[in-house]
Amino acid sequence: MSQISPQPCPDEEQIVLRLDQVAALVEGQLSGAGELTISGFSSLEGAGPDDLTFLVQSKDSGQLRASKAAAALVPLNFDEEINRPIIRVKDPNLAGAIIHNHLLARPFRATGIHPRACLGADCGIAAAVSIGPLAVIGNRVTIGEEVTIEPGVVIGDDVTIGDQCLIKANVTVAAGCRIGRRVTLHSGVVIGSDGYGYATDGRGNHVKRPQVGIVRIDDDVEIGANSCVDRGAFGETWIKSGVKIDNLVQIAHNVVIGENSLIVAQVGLAGSTILGRNVVMGGQSSAKGHVHIGDRVMVAARGGVHNNQPAGAVIGGAPAIAIRQWGKASAVFNRLPELQSEIRQLRKTVAGLQQAAGSAGSEGESND
Amino acid sequence: MSQISPQPCPDEEQIVLRLDQVAALVEGQLSGAGELTISGFSSLEGAGPDDLTFLVQSKDSGQLRASKAAAALVPLNFDEEINRPIIRVKDPNLAGAIIHNHLLARPFRATGIHPRACLGADCGIAAAVSIGPLAVIGNRVTIGEEVTIEPGVVIGDDVTIGDQCLIKANVTVAAGCRIGRRVTLHSGVVIGSDGYGYATDGRGNHVKRPQVGIVRIDDDVEIGANSCVDRGAFGETWIKSGVKIDNLVQIAHNVVIGENSLIVAQVGLAGSTILGRNVVMGGQSSAKGHVHIGDRVMVAARGGVHNNQPAGAVIGGAPAIAIRQWGKASAVFNRLPELQSEIRQLRKTVAGLQQAAGSAGSEGESND
Amino acid sequence: MSQISPQPCPDEEQIVLRLDQVAALVEGQLSGAGELTISGFSSLEGAGPDDLTFLVQSKDSGQLRASKAAAALVPLNFDEEINRPIIRVKDPNLAGAIIHNHLLARPFRATGIHPRACLGADCGIAAAVSIGPLAVIGNRVTIGEEVTIEPGVVIGDDVTIGDQCLIKANVTVAAGCRIGRRVTLHSGVVIGSDGYGYATDGRGNHVKRPQVGIVRIDDDVEIGANSCVDRGAFGETWIKSGVKIDNLVQIAHNVVIGENSLIVAQVGLAGSTILGRNVVMGGQSSAKGHVHIGDRVMVAARGGVHNNQPAGAVIGGAPAIAIRQWGKASAVFNRLPELQSEIRQLRKTVAGLQQAAGSAGSEGESND
Repeated sequence: MSQISPQPCPDEEQIVLRLDQVAALVEGQLSGAGELTISGFSSLEGAGPDDLTFLVQSKDSGQLRASKAAAALVPLNFDEEINRPIIRVKDPNLAGAIIHNHLLARPFRATGIHPRACLGADCGIAAAVSIGPLAVIGNRVTIGEEVTIEPGVVIGDDVTIGDQCLIKANVTVAAGCRIGRRVTLHSGVVIGSDGYGYATDGRGNHVKRPQVGIVRIDDDVEIGANSCVDRGAFGETWIKSGVKIDNLVQIAHNVVIGENSLIVAQVGLAGSTILGRNVVMGGQSSAKGHVHIGDRVMVAARGGVHNNQPAGAVIGGAPAIAIRQWGKASAVFNRLPELQSEIRQLRKTVAGLQQAAGSAGSEGESND
Repeated sequence: MSQISPQPCPDEEQIVLRLDQVAALVEGQLSGAGELTISGFSSLEGAGPDDLTFLVQSKDSGQLRASKAAAALVPLNFDEEINRPIIRVKDPNLAGAIIHNHLLARPFRATGIHPRACLGADCGIAAAVSIGPLAVIGNRVTIGEEVTIEPGVVIGDDVTIGDQCLIKANVTVAAGCRIGRRVTLHSGVVIGSDGYGYATDGRGNHVKRPQVGIVRIDDDVEIGANSCVDRGAFGETWIKSGVKIDNLVQIAHNVVIGENSLIVAQVGLAGSTILGRNVVMGGQSSAKGHVHIGDRVMVAARGGVHNNQPAGAVIGGAPAIAIRQWGKASAVFNRLPELQSEIRQLRKTVAGLQQAAGSAGSEGESND
Repeated sequence: MSQISPQPCPDEEQIVLRLDQVAALVEGQLSGAGELTISGFSSLEGAGPDDLTFLVQSKDSGQLRASKAAAALVPLNFDEEINRPIIRVKDPNLAGAIIHNHLLARPFRATGIHPRACLGADCGIAAAVSIGPLAVIGNRVTIGEEVTIEPGVVIGDDVTIGDQCLIKANVTVAAGCRIGRRVTLHSGVVIGSDGYGYATDGRGNHVKRPQVGIVRIDDDVEIGANSCVDRGAFGETWIKSGVKIDNLVQIAHNVVIGENSLIVAQVGLAGSTILGRNVVMGGQSSAKGHVHIGDRVMVAARGGVHNNQPAGAVIGGAPAIAIRQWGKASAVFNRLPELQSEIRQLRKTVAGLQQAAGSAGSEGESND
């Protein structure tokens, strides 16, 4: 077991793992031939005879039987006889991600600064970088080791980019922003656009409030295509480490997003909103400005957060309320027309009863 | 009638159509001088004396009378006397689009590969293309005949682009994606960004699930500005032929959109959602992941689809329900405060009746 | 007081203002030493000993006491003893914006046209401009005095850009669009993409309706990152003077936005919608096509406007209704499950009363 980690290999050379190596990497229980090897990882349908695959739910074992995969990661409770080696793991998704990354890992290949990139003055650029053609780097920019900057990227003056970042084509990072290590920015992302801040004069004209802060992005953040993060009005907009942001997300000035939070596509976070750690904002959800959202809060897709939320709250709807309450209220919403009819019917019945009671002489305090 | 199609003409030369040619092109019924010619097409207000115009609804005939247009496409049922030639057609919008395209058609003018474009190795590029300055084409890219690639476009390695595509400025197409014929990508579109996929470990850290699939776009697709289509996690994200996508739309990994579906602005489709043919997703609507939406389903603007939908369903709201039911429920929603008051009032009245009945000696099973 | 406006100064030289100058610039009442100077402007927390700061609400005076700022703009009604000079003003936000802009003002520094920009034919470009590397300017483009065009910008043929515009990195302005003076377009903005217009034939295929109009943007407009403004189908999409648009906003073809309107992030305006002056569209709100929204209408975040709105309306919800009505209805929505229970309970009680009344011989007209 001493050579579980495969030797670093030249690019284009395939990484091959023995199943006992796989099991050790993910703390799994192997049933089958440990010396069998795999060189790829794929879905149940997509896998070929050299691939490892993964089964998330035991009930889908039929798909595993039909798969061409050499072997499979399966849940701990998987108890069927199966026609190939399996490795039982606590979380096949997680184990699969670990093995897949392992198989795809390649040493960084620095291609240097392309002669048709455009470089400003007084930059500090590490030795091993890949900066593509038609990338534009401003003045006094710092770029760490093993950074890749694809074509069409524009980096403003005084930006700092940490080691091992991947800045995809046509990204813009505006002046002064600070990006940590192992950050991935997907194409079309804009970091450091001005926040939306105006003061309105007596004639209804809007005077721009200068936006003089920056964006700070910590380590291991990933930001999806065409998302925007505005710079602070003053100070910072701050995306803490491990945060993963999907496509077309809007992060306004001075927002703070806590460690490992997940921000799904098309979310909008208004100015100065603070999110704790491991918050999940579902797709197209949003939060008002200046709201505090506690650790581990989960906001359902399309939820609109109007108020501070305690740690662990699970909410939905707009204005967002407890998800169970929202689910029940939504169910009743769908039958509101019937409910209205019932009330009309009741009113009629009660009026009849009142009339009968009245004609019987007992006028009460029922009507006011 | 043998020369209905005008001869191909050099660029800048105007295409001129006789009204009898126009009528033949759209299977219309001409009333008026067939030898009269038009050379442009415009709206009722915008049209000049050389232009054809179109009237969608007969009731707007006043606007037609006021128009300067030479002639008009009108609905079949149009029966007013009008002061110029008209062509009756089943659908003036459609007929107008056909004629307008006809008048604007020009032979492709290949400008070649601009010396300041940046071209990778081993590409297969057709003879007649127009690739603008500061476009970047990766390695092993295939580009078909009569393709236009505007400035600032970045095409990744191993991409295939079919004949007659139009790739507008600052588009990104990432490695390995396959684009059919006559596809238009508007500025800022990102094709092939990574899907949003992570597996979370026991400490709340998110491990990236490698996104190793591609985006496949079939023929005659148009995608609006700044929209994003993520690559498959495995396999493909697949936009089938004739699909039209508006601006700022998010298409997640492994979504499949059936032929001729319409996806209006700011829609979000979550991962692995499958749309049938001729589906219409209204503006800002969305669908949860893994949902199946049948052929011809129409989702109202801002609708949120949570469940599978049978072919032909017309739905709205979030969670989306039958549009008529949603419309009625929304109407009742607006008067919920009054409804609540009525219920309070009823409760009071009923309590009074109960008391009266009780004092009259008839205690029932009414309270439990 | 004759030298209130500081002399123009060379770049990098700090602008310094005496407090009596500050007070005069914002028509404020100074309490304290008028000869004291400030050279910066910042938030209460961020300010240093050379900075002016601002207090929006008198109740936050504790933060002002803790601030390191040299002096502060405060509301007119501020009546506490405070340990530094203050200037009382009607609106500290507005006064602060004015002073901050004043301190940041620098004479325009024209860097000319970068040798690695790409310029078309027959352009009219003013003497004092800054056009960055890898910007692409089409043919017959007009660019006014003191315009800045950052790297990666693509300007199409026949575009006009007025004096003192700032076009940030990776913006696209498509052919024929007309941009006024002092317009700021943030990174990733797309101006002049095709509108979403198709006519559908009998087989369900969509025929493109050519989009031959333009986008017209008047003076003093600001448009946020990755927002899109489609060109008119015919005629113009028109953004009038002083309009401020946030990030990721979608403006469809032939929309007209009146002077000084505010369009917050992720809003979508469908085709031919007309907004009056000083309209406010909250974040993620939307309007249907062809709707008229009167002057000073305010739409709450996530509101969906389905109908014409009179001037001054304040609305929310989707379909949007009066905001107070919507607020009340939303509150009742949250307790719909309880309301449903109450109705069930009432029905039971009434049935009991009916039975009792029936057994007492008085059958009424209560059931139909």
